[in-house]
Amino acid sequence: MSGEEAPAQQQTPEEQKQDAQQNEEAKQEQSKPAAEAPAEKEVEEEVFTYRSLVLSGYGGYDKVKLQVKKGMPSPKTGEVVVRVKACGLNFADLLGRQGLYDRLPSPPVTPGMECSGLVEAVGEDVTDRKVGDKVIVLSRSGMWQEVVAVAASHTFLMPEGMTFEEAAAIPVNYITAYMMLFDFGNLRPNQSVLIHMAAGGVGVAATQLCKTVKDVTIFGTSSASKHEAISAMGVTHPIDYRTRDYVDEIRKISPKGLDIVLDPLGGSDTHKAFNLLRPMGKLITYGAANVLTGQRKNLIALAKTWYNQFSINAMSLMHANKAVCGYNLGYLDSEFEMITDVVAKLLDLFKQGKIKPKVDSTWHFEQVGDAMRRMQERNNIGKVILLPEPKKEEPKTEEAKKEEVKKDEAKKEEN
Amino acid sequence: MSGEEAPAQQQTPEEQKQDAQQNEEAKQEQSKPAAEAPAEKEVEEEVFTYRSLVLSGYGGYDKVKLQVKKGMPSPKTGEVVVRVKACGLNFADLLGRQGLYDRLPSPPVTPGMECSGLVEAVGEDVTDRKVGDKVIVLSRSGMWQEVVAVAASHTFLMPEGMTFEEAAAIPVNYITAYMMLFDFGNLRPNQSVLIHMAAGGVGVAATQLCKTVKDVTIFGTSSASKHEAISAMGVTHPIDYRTRDYVDEIRKISPKGLDIVLDPLGGSDTHKAFNLLRPMGKLITYGAANVLTGQRKNLIALAKTWYNQFSINAMSLMHANKAVCGYNLGYLDSEFEMITDVVAKLLDLFKQGKIKPKVDSTWHFEQVGDAMRRMQERNNIGKVILLPEPKKEEPKTEEAKKEEVKKDEAKKEEN
Repeated sequence: MSGEEAPAQQQTPEEQKQDAQQNEEAKQEQSKPAAEAPAEKEVEEEVFTYRSLVLSGYGGYDKVKLQVKKGMPSPKTGEVVVRVKACGLNFADLLGRQGLYDRLPSPPVTPGMECSGLVEAVGEDVTDRKVGDKVIVLSRSGMWQEVVAVAASHTFLMPEGMTFEEAAAIPVNYITAYMMLFDFGNLRPNQSVLIHMAAGGVGVAATQLCKTVKDVTIFGTSSASKHEAISAMGVTHPIDYRTRDYVDEIRKISPKGLDIVLDPLGGSDTHKAFNLLRPMGKLITYGAANVLTGQRKNLIALAKTWYNQFSINAMSLMHANKAVCGYNLGYLDSEFEMITDVVAKLLDLFKQGKIKPKVDSTWHFEQVGDAMRRMQERNNIGKVILLPEPKKEEPKTEEAKKEEVKKDEAKKEEN
Repeated sequence: MSGEEAPAQQQTPEEQKQDAQQNEEAKQEQSKPAAEAPAEKEVEEEVFTYRSLVLSGYGGYDKVKLQVKKGMPSPKTGEVVVRVKACGLNFADLLGRQGLYDRLPSPPVTPGMECSGLVEAVGEDVTDRKVGDKVIVLSRSGMWQEVVAVAASHTFLMPEGMTFEEAAAIPVNYITAYMMLFDFGNLRPNQSVLIHMAAGGVGVAATQLCKTVKDVTIFGTSSASKHEAISAMGVTHPIDYRTRDYVDEIRKISPKGLDIVLDPLGGSDTHKAFNLLRPMGKLITYGAANVLTGQRKNLIALAKTWYNQFSINAMSLMHANKAVCGYNLGYLDSEFEMITDVVAKLLDLFKQGKIKPKVDSTWHFEQVGDAMRRMQERNNIGKVILLPEPKKEEPKTEEAKKEEVKKDEAKKEEN
């Protein structure tokens, strides 16, 4: 079932009321990109304007609107203002659009958890950033704008030789993959890992990070058309989850089971993940992509995923000698020391040439709907990037778009 | 409530019937120490006799009887016969006596998961062990005998300078502590760990293993009388769980929470463990010591522990960014490659002087009841060891016994 064909979701009266209440806060919210900064004083109004993507309400791709905001954000104490060059699109943004990601403040709100750009102004007490620095930014939301004001501690200096597109592809996917594999997963040589959606942002990052450890066997799921690409990136055994039972395929190759399963799917796939583990194996669940089946919130998919949600007790875990870990970067706001440490390690790996973000395609802010569609319909190989700069005549994404059309056709045939 | 004062548990008619059925298998069972070896042929009867501890039925300390068995066990293909010098007593043995450990075959059965001794005979296809080798043995049960026949792959050569008592104290406690801390726990410098029952076998092993990593903060619970001892072994913050709320004590020192909690208790303590974790923290549950409150199975403690059993779903884990791991060495029978690897690392650490088993006390087979009582009443500091050799006039355990009497008196005052 595709949500595309589903009737447009009706707002309940309660939701409408909620929207109305929030309109009051909206204007302040829009000029306050970092969610945690209290809107204590009015930002000075100037002639300066900047482009911002705003989620106007929960629903389909068209709910993210391009707006022009007035007034240059000024950095508060400890903050920097960044001129954004590229933004990352994440699964959480797609969930957020449907009202399924509770770390995104209520609409109207600017989504976006990561970007890269140039420091344009520096607030008081900021000593380690200066105007002109190229930075990577990680935040809870609000990054899909031409300019953002963020805590300097949420910025990381870009290493030499990294493009802005690559930089915007680093934070969410690579931090997630790194912490899952090397903190919870404790990945060691000769182990085996299952990576679902191996061509996705986290999938590519996880594959590259697995390759930094000796003799790791990587099982990766994706549609068959992406197998060549994911094999080239390092997946040992690509599995077409659309035509094969991935559990059977893995059992054939690895009858004793796997050391690590990364689970972005949720629902019944989490159960499969647990059963695929060998003793001392680790299941790391970090999403519920299964709830995302169409443009708009799909109550059937939600109910099914919720109903099938994996749950376990202490005794069963002991008998199985297994670990179940939950990861959500959005809930690690307060752990910036930990995050900074991880980013430092990632940038080191980049400098050593051991990781390199794969950019699938770049889209201008006015194309955000198409960008979201590309990711949600799982047509991307690597990261989908948004560019604040206005679209010019020559679109960068022609090739990607052609491919998308092909995929769309393939999808229609499947349905 | 102390099980000591509880009326002797009645066997139900069903249990009696079960016992009768199993008596048939009993004699064969008794001459077949390694549980997995099928009793295909009769062991030759000789004048040779050996002492064996046999659990005659579930219940109190007196259910483990000293028996004399006839007939020297002969090694099957791949097996060695070991003249046992020392055996380890474990929590699982105490649970097994009460019928609460499902990895112990039904009585009559010889308990005991670990021992040390001298290889006395070598079966076919055994090339890496020879008569006279000093070995450490790990098995599912059956080790509390003067001689045992076991798979050679379940034996490990004792390093120079290790006593038989120390050797018998290694397998269960140190493998458990090692795999919990370094596989599931992924313990790294500057982290914090809570070790319950820090003076117990696993507790001492875990403390020593934590000390092999730089700047690990160790919280350890024990009764106040053992604080000096556990501090000397490396516990940073000893906590008297009998007079203090250990959660409060830990929060005072480490308000953000802990990186690792080892949970041998189960029930409501597992919930406390989970809540004590900081983000990315790991709860490793490996027992249900809370069910063990007296000599005999305590149905109230069982029900309470079961009712309070920790259970969690994928969503809650993700929101918390935490890991829940279950460990039970008894269910890792088939993972001998993994175990062999861990034992090699442990023996290396022993050779480097980084770990050294602490033997609390040694008890002859005829004193097994007292040995079990000492452990079950948590009077030990370190490992309780059983010796197959008959008790002579000078008991080795005089000092330990005096201490025990003191503790017993203290306990009576508390109750």
